[in-house]
Amino acid sequence: MAAAQLTSDHLTERHRSTLEQALEAIRTRAYWSPHPEHPKAYGEDGSLSAADGLEAHKATLGARFELDQPGTDGWTGGEVSPYGPELGVEYPHADVDVLLPAMRAGMAAWRDAGPDTRALVCLEILARISGRTHEFAHAVMHTSGQAFMMAFQAGGPHAQDRGLEAVAYAYAEQVRTPLDADWSKPQGKRDPLELRKTFTPVPRGVSLLIGCNTFPTWNGYPGLFASLATGNPVLVKPHPRAVLPLALTVRVAREVLAEAGFDPNLVALAVERPGEGIAKDLAVRPEIRIIDYTGSTSFGDWLEANARQAQVYTEKAGVNTVVVDSTDDYKGMLSNLAFSLSLYSGQMCTTPQNLLIPRDGITTDAGPKSYDEVVADLAAAVSGLLGDDARANALLGAIVNPDVKARLEAAAGLGEVALASREVANPDFPGAVVRTPVLVKLDGSKPDAEAAYMSECFGPVAFAVSVESTADALELLRRTVREKGAMTVGAYTTSPDVERAVEEVCLEESAQLSLNLTGGVYVNQTAAFSDFHGSGGNPAANAALCDSAFVANRFRVVEVRRQA
Amino acid sequence: MAAAQLTSDHLTERHRSTLEQALEAIRTRAYWSPHPEHPKAYGEDGSLSAADGLEAHKATLGARFELDQPGTDGWTGGEVSPYGPELGVEYPHADVDVLLPAMRAGMAAWRDAGPDTRALVCLEILARISGRTHEFAHAVMHTSGQAFMMAFQAGGPHAQDRGLEAVAYAYAEQVRTPLDADWSKPQGKRDPLELRKTFTPVPRGVSLLIGCNTFPTWNGYPGLFASLATGNPVLVKPHPRAVLPLALTVRVAREVLAEAGFDPNLVALAVERPGEGIAKDLAVRPEIRIIDYTGSTSFGDWLEANARQAQVYTEKAGVNTVVVDSTDDYKGMLSNLAFSLSLYSGQMCTTPQNLLIPRDGITTDAGPKSYDEVVADLAAAVSGLLGDDARANALLGAIVNPDVKARLEAAAGLGEVALASREVANPDFPGAVVRTPVLVKLDGSKPDAEAAYMSECFGPVAFAVSVESTADALELLRRTVREKGAMTVGAYTTSPDVERAVEEVCLEESAQLSLNLTGGVYVNQTAAFSDFHGSGGNPAANAALCDSAFVANRFRVVEVRRQA
Repeated sequence: MAAAQLTSDHLTERHRSTLEQALEAIRTRAYWSPHPEHPKAYGEDGSLSAADGLEAHKATLGARFELDQPGTDGWTGGEVSPYGPELGVEYPHADVDVLLPAMRAGMAAWRDAGPDTRALVCLEILARISGRTHEFAHAVMHTSGQAFMMAFQAGGPHAQDRGLEAVAYAYAEQVRTPLDADWSKPQGKRDPLELRKTFTPVPRGVSLLIGCNTFPTWNGYPGLFASLATGNPVLVKPHPRAVLPLALTVRVAREVLAEAGFDPNLVALAVERPGEGIAKDLAVRPEIRIIDYTGSTSFGDWLEANARQAQVYTEKAGVNTVVVDSTDDYKGMLSNLAFSLSLYSGQMCTTPQNLLIPRDGITTDAGPKSYDEVVADLAAAVSGLLGDDARANALLGAIVNPDVKARLEAAAGLGEVALASREVANPDFPGAVVRTPVLVKLDGSKPDAEAAYMSECFGPVAFAVSVESTADALELLRRTVREKGAMTVGAYTTSPDVERAVEEVCLEESAQLSLNLTGGVYVNQTAAFSDFHGSGGNPAANAALCDSAFVANRFRVVEVRRQA
Repeated sequence: MAAAQLTSDHLTERHRSTLEQALEAIRTRAYWSPHPEHPKAYGEDGSLSAADGLEAHKATLGARFELDQPGTDGWTGGEVSPYGPELGVEYPHADVDVLLPAMRAGMAAWRDAGPDTRALVCLEILARISGRTHEFAHAVMHTSGQAFMMAFQAGGPHAQDRGLEAVAYAYAEQVRTPLDADWSKPQGKRDPLELRKTFTPVPRGVSLLIGCNTFPTWNGYPGLFASLATGNPVLVKPHPRAVLPLALTVRVAREVLAEAGFDPNLVALAVERPGEGIAKDLAVRPEIRIIDYTGSTSFGDWLEANARQAQVYTEKAGVNTVVVDSTDDYKGMLSNLAFSLSLYSGQMCTTPQNLLIPRDGITTDAGPKSYDEVVADLAAAVSGLLGDDARANALLGAIVNPDVKARLEAAAGLGEVALASREVANPDFPGAVVRTPVLVKLDGSKPDAEAAYMSECFGPVAFAVSVESTADALELLRRTVREKGAMTVGAYTTSPDVERAVEEVCLEESAQLSLNLTGGVYVNQTAAFSDFHGSGGNPAANAALCDSAFVANRFRVVEVRRQA
């Protein structure tokens, strides 16, 4: 391999202080991010401007995406933007019998580089991705269907934050044990027993990232960077509808690895041919020792049960609940909920689905409100928020795939429709399927309604479930989290007793709770370095982003002891 | 519940500095222990003297072991000392449908106590156990068959060290995230977004400890204390032949919990009736969310595959190898290996089994030695070490159960016997089955020998396997670790190249390596706070004692966020 262009000194100078700040942020959990959220912040210091980012994106369309990785046995692709256009990008298809051994070849050198160098190389990868945020924004937009600004922020800086957070956790975990130690055990009057010990963090093996359709970078980066920072090669298997953002990521990672003097094959891409379903085959191969997955419960459960040779980290489906007991800011509550239901057409694993509202109504600063009034007012809030088509498009984005559209259409038949979904035209992309959320009333005391509200209905579908009382709401919340899992729980109450009670349910059932959000923070958004995404303690996910449990078992420590 | 006799101030005064020292020890991995190894160190400051410990032990024999735990539906027991006598102790048999809910009743208060109080309560439990070390020594001796001094040290201070180490790791992991944080995100000219966040470590649920026959306390304490310190109730299911040491442990834990104002049912005992096999039923109950297990590979694998609702930590079987390439201290090597093979009749998961010796012999400070000479000299070293019956009894202890005896007897038929096992009479315990190790020569190039050396033959059985070369030895080492797992690897070499090569195999296959041990430290011994026991990265165990991966997933962190 050629001499490294990126020396250790360069990397330290560029990234050491960022790493230290990230380590401090995960300790204090105060607000922090090195990645600007505003599109205008880019375009200098070598980063792509808006125009250059769009140009770069367009240059990838309708072309082969060259990666120069071993074992390429053909080309495949077929992404169609949820906004209409075919992307026309063809990716290398890998013969994994060739690719996997090639990915292992550089493992020993990557292991020997140690936690510091690995962290700094990962930070360089993230910094280069950050510099291309405008390009990534288009790639995320045209695979996930997110509106541009969301694709920019969630797919860019927020995803990079989550990757950096994973690097920080991985680093902290690896340096908890010193590289060496002298051990001297007193033996009374005799000489002490003395040993010289070394401790080396060693990788488990190839890590497989199985990407998702809706948040290819945000959900993919934590596992990718946690595994890479702990010494493991990473094979990236994107969702077939959302390849481009991860292919760009793999290209940058390979480029940086090579420049830093490591084998670029430590990160590689595996794109499947239509219907090939390679995730299932890859997941049980003996080389694969770690799997990160975001997607359906059924395949997540399958992975947990069958990929026994690997550490499996899954984020699956859940049913997110908001308990509505009372509020001292009725308007704020309605507008906050309306935004949460509308953002990215509810296609977030954190979007609320079931709004539990007492049948006899709630108390508010605007006077008592009946169940029907609350539902009607929420419907009006959503309609108001999305009344303007331009604003609706900017908030909703596009429906990511036909399954979501089908679920949305079916939802209207599940109960009384309080707010019908409407089609929104997108003047820039006539092919985009844009829909406002449907709000359906369900009677929580009717057994036939339970099938609806006790299943995840991923997409722009919310159920206003009437319950006997707040106490009943809490019992239903508990049962929902325990049986179906939840990525988020929200609650509105002015009662300290109810607040304590909902908190207790969340502590006992291991669910992340947002209380009385009425301003510019939404239950479906979490911030890296401060918020945990999921808890890893209920059926929605077996891991949280990001904590030490997410990184500590991606490597093992091998001790060598010698007589001193 | 009565007011706590053990206040937080008491606990802090007694144990805070020990906790701090333990935290420092796991950071530096230098030698440290607060638990004296010498029997004479006990008898003052309220600890039991040798005489009092024996007295206390005798008082438990032939009697009911009262625990006053809910759901007791009868009495059971039947332990027979490997030294001969029946213990005659009867333990409460639990109706787990009553016991498990009772164990959960105190969870919320234990959770709310927080990581500091939980750690200090655990340290008080360990301190009281430490005060009864002489009593525990007899209990461990007469269940495991360990000789008294080993039962005293490994079952007493060393086990307590491992428990304390687990508490330290659990504490460190829980306090990595602050209890609360203020989050303020700038919004340009607008007011910042502000949230008040709290973070609570929450338990997973009831933790099940499935104890083993040979090291009930040493192998049991890490999981027990890691789970308890992270807020989980612990149900202790001892091996039916080794109940007493864990029953004593449960009694002390319940006493301390009650005195500190917590529900004593947070720790409970489940002893099975003969042939009842309750581990399998308990392991898949929904209340059980964590399992710690030490024992056979087959049941460990079964747990990993079937107890899907739980986090499962297993230490199973492995095949431990020593590579003999060359030495500059031939005598030291032989005496060190002889001791390792003899200690507790080889009934340690860390005892070497396969000694890989080049067929053309090795170079030593005493001149070249042929394969036959090395084997004969090792046989002589073992014979010399165990020639005196008193010394042999003190080192070997007793054969723990008939299965080990049967394996020992069968081993002589597997190849040419270089050193036959001999019966040693124990004058104090005529019923004890005491045997010296058998050393069997196997030809590593013969396929029919492979079945022997590629299986774990737990007990006083060692194979001197002739190999073509050191390079072949390393390949066999690699294959053995990869396919069968290993708790330990040893190697003797004067060659820097061979040293690097064996180190590389261990780094790649995740095995703990001891190099050129010729003095008073043995490959089969590990010290808490400094050495890892197992790596968790090869088939012998899915966890290491102790690291953060062992504790980080026993709890989850629940975040509650409110608008500030």
